[in-house]
Amino acid sequence: MFEAAEVGNIVSKEEYKARAPRLRTDLLEVQRELSRQARFPVVVVFGGVDGGGKSETVHLLNEWMDPRWIVTRAFDDPSEEERSRPEYWRYWQALPPRGRMGLFLRSWYSPPLMERVYRHVKTPEFDERLNRIAAFEKGLADDGALILKFWMHLGRRAQKRRLKKLERDPQTRWRVSKLQWKHWRMYDDFVAAAERAIERTSTADAPWTIVEGDDERYRTLTVATIIRDAMRRRLGGAWRAPRRTSDTSGKSVARATVFPVGSASSRIVLSQLDMSRAIDRAVFRQKLEERQGRLNLLQRKARERGTSAILVFEGWDAAGKGGAIRRVAAALDSPAYQIIPIAAPTDEERAHHYLWRFWRYLPRRGMLSIFDRSWYGRVLVERVEGFASPAEWFRAYSEINDFEEQLVEHGYVLVKYWLHITADEQLRRFKERERSSFKQWKLTDEDWRNRKRSGEYARAVNDMVARTSTRTAPWTLVEANDKYYARIKVIDTLCARLEKALKIRT
Amino acid sequence: MFEAAEVGNIVSKEEYKARAPRLRTDLLEVQRELSRQARFPVVVVFGGVDGGGKSETVHLLNEWMDPRWIVTRAFDDPSEEERSRPEYWRYWQALPPRGRMGLFLRSWYSPPLMERVYRHVKTPEFDERLNRIAAFEKGLADDGALILKFWMHLGRRAQKRRLKKLERDPQTRWRVSKLQWKHWRMYDDFVAAAERAIERTSTADAPWTIVEGDDERYRTLTVATIIRDAMRRRLGGAWRAPRRTSDTSGKSVARATVFPVGSASSRIVLSQLDMSRAIDRAVFRQKLEERQGRLNLLQRKARERGTSAILVFEGWDAAGKGGAIRRVAAALDSPAYQIIPIAAPTDEERAHHYLWRFWRYLPRRGMLSIFDRSWYGRVLVERVEGFASPAEWFRAYSEINDFEEQLVEHGYVLVKYWLHITADEQLRRFKERERSSFKQWKLTDEDWRNRKRSGEYARAVNDMVARTSTRTAPWTLVEANDKYYARIKVIDTLCARLEKALKIRT
Repeated sequence: MFEAAEVGNIVSKEEYKARAPRLRTDLLEVQRELSRQARFPVVVVFGGVDGGGKSETVHLLNEWMDPRWIVTRAFDDPSEEERSRPEYWRYWQALPPRGRMGLFLRSWYSPPLMERVYRHVKTPEFDERLNRIAAFEKGLADDGALILKFWMHLGRRAQKRRLKKLERDPQTRWRVSKLQWKHWRMYDDFVAAAERAIERTSTADAPWTIVEGDDERYRTLTVATIIRDAMRRRLGGAWRAPRRTSDTSGKSVARATVFPVGSASSRIVLSQLDMSRAIDRAVFRQKLEERQGRLNLLQRKARERGTSAILVFEGWDAAGKGGAIRRVAAALDSPAYQIIPIAAPTDEERAHHYLWRFWRYLPRRGMLSIFDRSWYGRVLVERVEGFASPAEWFRAYSEINDFEEQLVEHGYVLVKYWLHITADEQLRRFKERERSSFKQWKLTDEDWRNRKRSGEYARAVNDMVARTSTRTAPWTLVEANDKYYARIKVIDTLCARLEKALKIRT
Repeated sequence: MFEAAEVGNIVSKEEYKARAPRLRTDLLEVQRELSRQARFPVVVVFGGVDGGGKSETVHLLNEWMDPRWIVTRAFDDPSEEERSRPEYWRYWQALPPRGRMGLFLRSWYSPPLMERVYRHVKTPEFDERLNRIAAFEKGLADDGALILKFWMHLGRRAQKRRLKKLERDPQTRWRVSKLQWKHWRMYDDFVAAAERAIERTSTADAPWTIVEGDDERYRTLTVATIIRDAMRRRLGGAWRAPRRTSDTSGKSVARATVFPVGSASSRIVLSQLDMSRAIDRAVFRQKLEERQGRLNLLQRKARERGTSAILVFEGWDAAGKGGAIRRVAAALDSPAYQIIPIAAPTDEERAHHYLWRFWRYLPRRGMLSIFDRSWYGRVLVERVEGFASPAEWFRAYSEINDFEEQLVEHGYVLVKYWLHITADEQLRRFKERERSSFKQWKLTDEDWRNRKRSGEYARAVNDMVARTSTRTAPWTLVEANDKYYARIKVIDTLCARLEKALKIRT
């Protein structure tokens, strides 16, 4: 989930200078319109790791906007007065009225998160707390509130770096105490709890956006842009169609997404992959044979023990999904697996919920299902091509998380692959397919069309990873410019996951 | 919650004969239209106590409608095939496609309910299971499904009677085994679990309707009418405006409610009260003094211990709320309580969520707040007068339950009174007010207007009790034709609740 916020997003000083003033004017303008219409309140929640820039962002928003129309609240330990009332009493008191904005730091998320990280509560109790949050926010949203939530993220090492930096500066030293370092040592617990919280409370009415917090300029522009766009959309009328602005570098920014899945930089999780990874053909042959033998043994053991697996293959056109699937399948006993190619839905399938057809194909005990494309079509092709409405595909993230949680709870080993190739490599493969008589069928006009929209697809892939790569069901991103490397990585990942599930030590 | 389904609703043979044929034709008609449009599926869930008529109703619907377009499923213990998949696999498989109806007996609600009743799971785990149900149904509803859920209820004694009757008849004897009697002995646990399940899963998208199951004709007409009306509304177009039909007795039935809060009979929970209850003035004086003394002691103890209380007074105009409140207040130390009269919201209050102003007035530790009218205005006056849209007031039931749950969890003693007087008594009091110079101010034109709508108000009160009288926050219905009796009952109830909370034995 946080992978997409550990990619080193940076905005240069020049770009910032070019974009910030405009953004500032825009924000003032939407704020004025908000207060003029006074139709709904805006509730902005900031969460995240220490040093991720929560308070800096809030300060800056107060500086940029008219503070008379903003309520800023950071909830400390409850006072006697507050403890004397139900927990949510103080949150209710602090809510902005229609026409105003409320910025919340250390919000209703902090106590449950801390209780979980300190292990004062177990998962079911934690979930209950999260459900109360979801119900609270739903109530506000039903009443018209525009709710935006930002999770300011830093990777483990980035957080350490950041805390050290704060410590070195005499002006900010006070902000880093033993507590911050204690929390840093609890980083993994913290991130695990945060992931669950975000997953369970990111709804279409109150979506979370994970923002990489390392670069101040990046996070500022990202947060401010999302707030501006969301407010414009909600204010409607003249605001309904946000202008496409171009920054000095000519990149199109501030996309008119209905949900906050954009970002202020074009750096995405896929761009972090080392695409030069490759292995030699001879080495591949040897490794493949060895790995396939291992996989076969594992699969037999899995069958014996009744452990089932579900493999999901997604990736660019011509990224080599088919080839990888064949290498996996070759290692399996044929009655033990099923390959399910997902094309356009049949009439019967179309008459049902989009997840229905995937439920149909869940493997029985001890079996393995390989999905060649999958339910992720909803947030990829259906999103980009407009087959699903923004509300539909945005909703799909949590529907999919929920679906996969049920799979994992049931005991399925769920492995999800995204096979990545660069644009150049894709072009090379397309041309090769054009030339080769026996590969021509593989290349359709649609492939060329998709290629033209590769920017939008890349953004969709990034959001998909950001919102559906969870601890229970992580994505495996496969560097597939070299098909040998990719195939070995696919099988290795599967073997490792099966070994873990079967509790086999290697 | 179940009070409104233990009132002895009955439909006479004549009325049934007069209404059933038309309803049957209507159902066939909407079914045909559903299949013609094929825009959405209809999912109907039946739950309830044994003998409440679930299966009879499903049989009858199959008989009345075209069974080719209906899927009926009752889920038994899972088969090997089913156990081999996640729990919801079989439910997904059974879902009707767009244009069809699915009737579900022993649905996704059965396993969690049974696990809870048999105490295999505790409340947090039970809640998790209920949340999964809610997410499942939300997903279907988001995809367009029309979901209706009926809980066929019988009181404890009514169930016993029904089971005995089934046992006596050789044709139905097989339906009553040791298990049914065992479940009957667990009645209270069953009803408690059911209440929680209904409360947590009754949403605007998938609302529950509790149906009194004792009288076959009544429950049949109720269920069939609600299904017909909901389908008509959803099918839109010519269907959008349901006709107001009149039955032979001239009563208006099949109200055009947006949500299934109507019923096939006019009998409501208020009509069950024994309105002849009264006490003598001399006895009242003596009792009052004694009770006020007791209440004062209790209130001091509560203050000492930091126990807070919230009293809610609702009732008909001229039912005597003010008088009852004064008798309660007279017994309290004046710094310990606050009376909060709820009139039309202020500008500031109007700029917030409707619950906001009630959160403001929550008492601090050891204090008592008396609300003269309350948050229930949302589902009473705002519903009847159209100040809240149907979606808003229907949603309010769960918002209120959630709010009150937080109050009770926090430790507040929450007592909710509905002061009931008959229409005749109200008229008598209105006229008295007209005549009396010092009571004239109490009578406004609005009172007369409200009186004209007393039928709608009575229905709203009934639904309010049905949907918000929970184990944690039950309603106390006060027979208030005799104000002496009412005042003593109000104080007695409060004393009993305080004693329970303070663990004082009397």
